[in-house]
Amino acid sequence: MDLTNSQLDALREIVGDRLSINESVLDQHGRDESAFPPVLPSAVLYPKSTDEVSRILSICNSELIPVVPFGAGTSLEGHVLPLKGGISLDMTEMNKVLKISAEDLTVRVEAGVTRVTLNNLLSKEGLFFSVDPGADATLGGMASTGAAGTTTVKYGSMRENVLALTAVLADGTVINVGRSTRKLSAGYDLTRLLVGSEGTLAVITELTLRIFGIPERMSAAIVRFNSLADGVAAATRVVQMGINVARCEFLDPASIRNANKHSGLTLPEQPTLLFEFHGSPANVESDAQSAKEIVQEFGGSDFEWTSDEGERRKLWQARHDAYWSNIHLYPGKRIVSTDLAVPLSKLAEAVQICNSILSKHKFPFSIFGHVADGNFHCMIINDPTNHSEHDEIRDVTHKMASRIIALGGTCTGEHGIGMGKIELLIEETGESAVSLMRKIKRTLDPNWILNPGKVLAIE
Amino acid sequence: MDLTNSQLDALREIVGDRLSINESVLDQHGRDESAFPPVLPSAVLYPKSTDEVSRILSICNSELIPVVPFGAGTSLEGHVLPLKGGISLDMTEMNKVLKISAEDLTVRVEAGVTRVTLNNLLSKEGLFFSVDPGADATLGGMASTGAAGTTTVKYGSMRENVLALTAVLADGTVINVGRSTRKLSAGYDLTRLLVGSEGTLAVITELTLRIFGIPERMSAAIVRFNSLADGVAAATRVVQMGINVARCEFLDPASIRNANKHSGLTLPEQPTLLFEFHGSPANVESDAQSAKEIVQEFGGSDFEWTSDEGERRKLWQARHDAYWSNIHLYPGKRIVSTDLAVPLSKLAEAVQICNSILSKHKFPFSIFGHVADGNFHCMIINDPTNHSEHDEIRDVTHKMASRIIALGGTCTGEHGIGMGKIELLIEETGESAVSLMRKIKRTLDPNWILNPGKVLAIE
Repeated sequence: MDLTNSQLDALREIVGDRLSINESVLDQHGRDESAFPPVLPSAVLYPKSTDEVSRILSICNSELIPVVPFGAGTSLEGHVLPLKGGISLDMTEMNKVLKISAEDLTVRVEAGVTRVTLNNLLSKEGLFFSVDPGADATLGGMASTGAAGTTTVKYGSMRENVLALTAVLADGTVINVGRSTRKLSAGYDLTRLLVGSEGTLAVITELTLRIFGIPERMSAAIVRFNSLADGVAAATRVVQMGINVARCEFLDPASIRNANKHSGLTLPEQPTLLFEFHGSPANVESDAQSAKEIVQEFGGSDFEWTSDEGERRKLWQARHDAYWSNIHLYPGKRIVSTDLAVPLSKLAEAVQICNSILSKHKFPFSIFGHVADGNFHCMIINDPTNHSEHDEIRDVTHKMASRIIALGGTCTGEHGIGMGKIELLIEETGESAVSLMRKIKRTLDPNWILNPGKVLAIE
Repeated sequence: MDLTNSQLDALREIVGDRLSINESVLDQHGRDESAFPPVLPSAVLYPKSTDEVSRILSICNSELIPVVPFGAGTSLEGHVLPLKGGISLDMTEMNKVLKISAEDLTVRVEAGVTRVTLNNLLSKEGLFFSVDPGADATLGGMASTGAAGTTTVKYGSMRENVLALTAVLADGTVINVGRSTRKLSAGYDLTRLLVGSEGTLAVITELTLRIFGIPERMSAAIVRFNSLADGVAAATRVVQMGINVARCEFLDPASIRNANKHSGLTLPEQPTLLFEFHGSPANVESDAQSAKEIVQEFGGSDFEWTSDEGERRKLWQARHDAYWSNIHLYPGKRIVSTDLAVPLSKLAEAVQICNSILSKHKFPFSIFGHVADGNFHCMIINDPTNHSEHDEIRDVTHKMASRIIALGGTCTGEHGIGMGKIELLIEETGESAVSLMRKIKRTLDPNWILNPGKVLAIE
């Protein structure tokens, strides 16, 4: 919807000149890292406090103005696109790190602080925040989408690392949920209800996060396999044996090929596993040794191991390139990234299914992922200007998701439902559970103003 | 409420002779391990399937019959007491382990399976389920109360270990939430909404749980301190340094004294820390060594370490006695257990506050807890026949909880709100958040039939 002048005036009374209707600003807030075509908001507001967010929502709720929270715009599922117009609530001016509690291993931040900014501050005290989705997202955005990443196997996702939240409900009510304690059993877990709710239930304004001491030593290892199935089976066994892996990533030959081209590497174009271990010098050596013994049972070859910082980064270069090499190698193309996850025992089969489906189409693709968590991404290259390709891509990705759901998997391990997987959510979890989600949505946001059209179809 | 004959007949049509109105059966379902006086249900039903639970709830919802799910009756907060009468839904005949997926590190169970039964089965395959609240509770009960325990510091609580649930809503609707995958980002986290909801939002009938491989080696360590503050500070530093502790427990001198009397031990009656480490032989030795170096900086003395199974159990005897020794040393008395938790930096202060408040009263008490998680229990001995003591105990425990909440802590780290902490929940999280919990309760259970009077005051 478009905003009337009196609505704009009422909002300006709260944020003053931190309201923009400048075309380029609107345009910047109408897109994310997903493949969905842009949709512009009518205005962008930059609140500076929870109180301002509360007053803004109070007006929007009365006036039925849709509100879409916006962080760094790095979402992969169209989360920040204002499908029904209204305002984009840019949280990046709420960017204060409020309190680092080194002794408690917690930090309190405003929602607009980004992950890298936080870690730069924390590193001075020998601490770090563990969730690493790749992009330099805001922490509010990461909580909203329930972000995860390469370190989730050891440290958990946002779900495990958000201890407490301040959030604003659709009618402007401010709630404080959770506690800065490491354990909590007091009442319904509203923290976990909001984490991953994709901005559809409340606007998160402040977060208390778990942090960790930077490990005394980190080591990395790389190993290659003759077949995908061997590599996946080896990674699965490492997890099953309780080896304390901090990261465990799989790259298919196409991902290695991309990295070789992109970074001038000469890595063998074979299914590859990368490991990282965190702990004392004795522990990381023992963990790497245990992993080596296991992967060799599955035909893993050329096991290389290092705890040298520079060497470690080099070993992991191919993984860092896995996403970005696609962008650089295919200029003008867009990348659709799937986010399927399955129980560990189904992983080799799941990747084979996707490989086989994708091989029947003309799109270049590569596959990599968080193998120790059973979560993998297919990067599918296509032409944004060709509409028949859009339909074909949608058909292919839905077909893969349906097969994975039938295997007991999920259509999204860490990216979220956003606007493209609403039907898949029903297919996966059933009408009854989705109907309950709708009831909860109606309870928290009766006017359906918060990020309409995400997670659930608009009523 | 009492049930009419026609209501009883309708329920008997579903469960046949698995409905009891026998006095001793009712009596057994009117109490738990808490200090609350018994309240009897009008009937006890023993469903054998999700479908039976669905049909029972459908009738109860139409007839406005309260329903209280019952597992092993080991709750500490009066969770299973049918405050408004109605039926007790005893889940112990739903006791099948449906599927052990060793490769996936998951298991699917019916809600009435107990923790020890499950672990006996899993151990044959070299696997274990990690959450250990002490009592041999049912897994449905543990999920409902969001149970945790000594291993939570490494493996998490029920919140982290329940992957998926089948549950029945108040109107009989069956929902499947969550997925057997290790990561999931599909829609609202209904799993975590039900875990810890204490039977007030739905009846859990089946669960998919994360399991782990039994560690190759376990080692244990014991160390004593001159002061409580030193012991707590040492434990905190061990956590901060990222030492991979599997358990880390604190015992005060009174707890040691109880254990000495109870088990004929001769342990020094000093503040004591117990550690357990899980991993490869090299890792558990390195972890114990690192812990030793740290605790010695805080004056920890007589550090003993072992990886011998028998010795390990002996070292931990005092911790196993911490609860049960009270029951045996004070026959005829009842024990009230608090469940406070604070951020790590406040733990020494919090324990001192409780120690000081309790010392002003006549009740024998001891304090122990999950120090690495900032969660500790005060065991307060009192006379169940003396009503003035009841009031005094309630005043003391509420006073302690208020002080802990003011410190940024919680009134319950792992036992739940139950019937005794409803006001404390409001004090802790605020009217706005509790009001939202009430709205969610009304949405899921509009007739307020599910475990009324727990978590939230009856409307």
